[in-house]
Amino acid sequence: MEEKVDAIKQYFQNKDYSQLKEYLRDINSVDISSMFDELKDEEIIVMYRLLEKEKAAEVFTELDSDIQEKLISVLTDKELKDVINELYIDDTVDIIEEMPSNVVKRILKHITPEDRQIINKLLQYPEDSAGSMMTTEFIDLKENMTVEEALAKIKKIGVDSETVYTCYVLSTTRRIMGVITLEKLLLADLNTKISEIMDQSIIKINTLEDQENVAKMFDKYDEYALPVVDKEDRLVGIITVDDALDILKEEQEEDFEKMAAIMPSSDDPYLKKSVFEHVKSRIGWLLILMLSATLTGTILSKYEDAFATVGLLVSFIPMVMGTAGNSGQQTSTIIIRAMATEEVSLSDWLKVLWKEIRVGTLVGLALLIVNMIRIYIQYQDFELSLVLGITLILTVIVSKAIGCMLPMLVKKLKKDPAVVAAPLLTTVIDLCAIVIYFQVATSIIAELKH
Amino acid sequence: MEEKVDAIKQYFQNKDYSQLKEYLRDINSVDISSMFDELKDEEIIVMYRLLEKEKAAEVFTELDSDIQEKLISVLTDKELKDVINELYIDDTVDIIEEMPSNVVKRILKHITPEDRQIINKLLQYPEDSAGSMMTTEFIDLKENMTVEEALAKIKKIGVDSETVYTCYVLSTTRRIMGVITLEKLLLADLNTKISEIMDQSIIKINTLEDQENVAKMFDKYDEYALPVVDKEDRLVGIITVDDALDILKEEQEEDFEKMAAIMPSSDDPYLKKSVFEHVKSRIGWLLILMLSATLTGTILSKYEDAFATVGLLVSFIPMVMGTAGNSGQQTSTIIIRAMATEEVSLSDWLKVLWKEIRVGTLVGLALLIVNMIRIYIQYQDFELSLVLGITLILTVIVSKAIGCMLPMLVKKLKKDPAVVAAPLLTTVIDLCAIVIYFQVATSIIAELKH
Repeated sequence: MEEKVDAIKQYFQNKDYSQLKEYLRDINSVDISSMFDELKDEEIIVMYRLLEKEKAAEVFTELDSDIQEKLISVLTDKELKDVINELYIDDTVDIIEEMPSNVVKRILKHITPEDRQIINKLLQYPEDSAGSMMTTEFIDLKENMTVEEALAKIKKIGVDSETVYTCYVLSTTRRIMGVITLEKLLLADLNTKISEIMDQSIIKINTLEDQENVAKMFDKYDEYALPVVDKEDRLVGIITVDDALDILKEEQEEDFEKMAAIMPSSDDPYLKKSVFEHVKSRIGWLLILMLSATLTGTILSKYEDAFATVGLLVSFIPMVMGTAGNSGQQTSTIIIRAMATEEVSLSDWLKVLWKEIRVGTLVGLALLIVNMIRIYIQYQDFELSLVLGITLILTVIVSKAIGCMLPMLVKKLKKDPAVVAAPLLTTVIDLCAIVIYFQVATSIIAELKH
Repeated sequence: MEEKVDAIKQYFQNKDYSQLKEYLRDINSVDISSMFDELKDEEIIVMYRLLEKEKAAEVFTELDSDIQEKLISVLTDKELKDVINELYIDDTVDIIEEMPSNVVKRILKHITPEDRQIINKLLQYPEDSAGSMMTTEFIDLKENMTVEEALAKIKKIGVDSETVYTCYVLSTTRRIMGVITLEKLLLADLNTKISEIMDQSIIKINTLEDQENVAKMFDKYDEYALPVVDKEDRLVGIITVDDALDILKEEQEEDFEKMAAIMPSSDDPYLKKSVFEHVKSRIGWLLILMLSATLTGTILSKYEDAFATVGLLVSFIPMVMGTAGNSGQQTSTIIIRAMATEEVSLSDWLKVLWKEIRVGTLVGLALLIVNMIRIYIQYQDFELSLVLGITLILTVIVSKAIGCMLPMLVKKLKKDPAVVAAPLLTTVIDLCAIVIYFQVATSIIAELKH
């Protein structure tokens, strides 16, 4: 990659533009767009103008919105029109949503009235809905067409369609009667009727479906494109797998953030986000978690007599709380993911709880043994080693039970388990661990018995 | 979904198999395969035999390996042969890898000698390599063909190819000269030479490339299929986006597990995994983290004099350690993900550190203010409130600095940041938090000064 940027800089230095044009032909449009980050503004503009029309449009959709804006501002009306003509409707909508209003005006000037109407309609769908993701440029066929007629239609309108690989067979009321792939059409006899070879098992998406569910459907069905229907069940658009992949990635990154107690923020890359934005997305949970930890502290102070008498008890607090927290987090992460991927449903709660209790018992038993031996060797104090052993096995079992039940409860209440469970979990598990530890200690250690 | 299973059970009760056959035609193969989980063995076999040949093969590849094995054992030789003939080579290889040897023998009996040779070769690639994922059934064209000749070739060999949508133009030594999509072929004039319209910017994968990188390339380039070349740069196979998506999902789930201190285990769903398997994947880190927490405990016991004098200090330990841990985890998660998605590279370390120190200072300042006020109101003790305030801002800054530098250091040492950083991070941050807290306390609270 860096080699390629260097090569391009060299061409610029030598003002060898015809060679550069030749060189760019062998580079993928995704790579070209990421090179733009490392070039100067004048270089970007020159390089963009050297690209072939089709590739220029591909590169354009890949660019960050600040570079898109810069480019639009220097392109002539003719050049801008060429770019926009090559774009698919869904990409145009994405760009319009990102640009300031003066740029939007300039873009809209070059769009035909019919397309402008479609764009306006797409802009009205809720932000994260299937309707806002879809494109209206698809290929529709009729049941009574022959394969030959279908192929002729594809040849005619294919150049303006986002994909020619999946075609939809529509009734007169624009309901989907079947789906047929270009592969099937190409391999079939030319006189076959479409209705004979089309696939009638149709997966449909509603315009108002949330984008996360759309992405999951692609993941589940391994389809290249899926049709979007309105509430009258008429085909209004399609979504292709590349758009679904982007959503899947976005949602996954959000899940990582949620689990690390970070509030969702803009999709800007780490280094482009301002310090203030970073602070905003992190301070909320830190404050909440800090204040909820005072609850644990208050409970802890109730046992002041105990640790005033046996000071050593304090030094095991990090281990007890740490082990409880880690055990609970293991379980909650597994259960939250299993619910997200639909491996586990709410009705499985008893099976899950029973499994976690058994896992917790075995894990706790192992920790108990290791720890009793270690403490006995270090302090030659059987009571102390017994206290820590019993505390560990109990806290691990309790943490695992809470770790699986709390996310399921949150889901049952129709909240997002990844967001709500994490902080609640920490607080609840910390509290339980402290109470178990000091209750066990006061009932076993002779000096603490009153 | 449940409705559909009920409907099918109804057909079985009425022994209405011709209606069932009709009903199954409208259901997607992914849905059919997931219904198999809820049917009895005899029902599965009857239902499978009612499927059309092509759909039967699709359903077969989607099934869990235990159901595949069950099916193979009851299928006649003729039926088994039909299934295998419909499968693509990469799916056959996947199935062979999962089956016990007696079943493998029965499968291999129905495979042609040439295919058997290919399968043997594919089985020899390292487990997680591109070679083991690819299929050898692709469409290759020659530069001097016309579009008409190319389309004729696709019609002839297309039925056996995993995809007809991306075709590769090869030299006589089987090097890739260009890539051409079926869309472009279909929309072009029949007499055009392939060399004139093929795309020369080729993305290639090496046979030994790790599957995680393969998945990332699909994610980056939004391609439907990518070619795999051997070390002599000859085209030997292709990988399609559906296989890449599966890997991407697997790797993501593994990342979630790593960050929650869980060791990777089998890909079985949660409920199918045995208690012992769950224990095995969780006990390792819990033991390590438990023992490393004793280090924090040892440091803590050094300050016994301090908390023997001012008992209240103990009750703030959960808050100080919790806040430090959460601050560090926020940063480390963000940096680990940013490195995974290549938003941040190792050379950015100074920019990252500087950003985190500023974020830490602002966040710490907010926590300081909130906490000083709260403690002053609760205890009317200015010294105590000052101790906690200073402790919090210092620990947050230090935790954020460690939270970004440690993962980068681990990456620099060519280890996986998600695996190594998490436990090390907890231990290091806990230690720092305790030391900061008691150092600040002993230097501010009058009673603790000697």
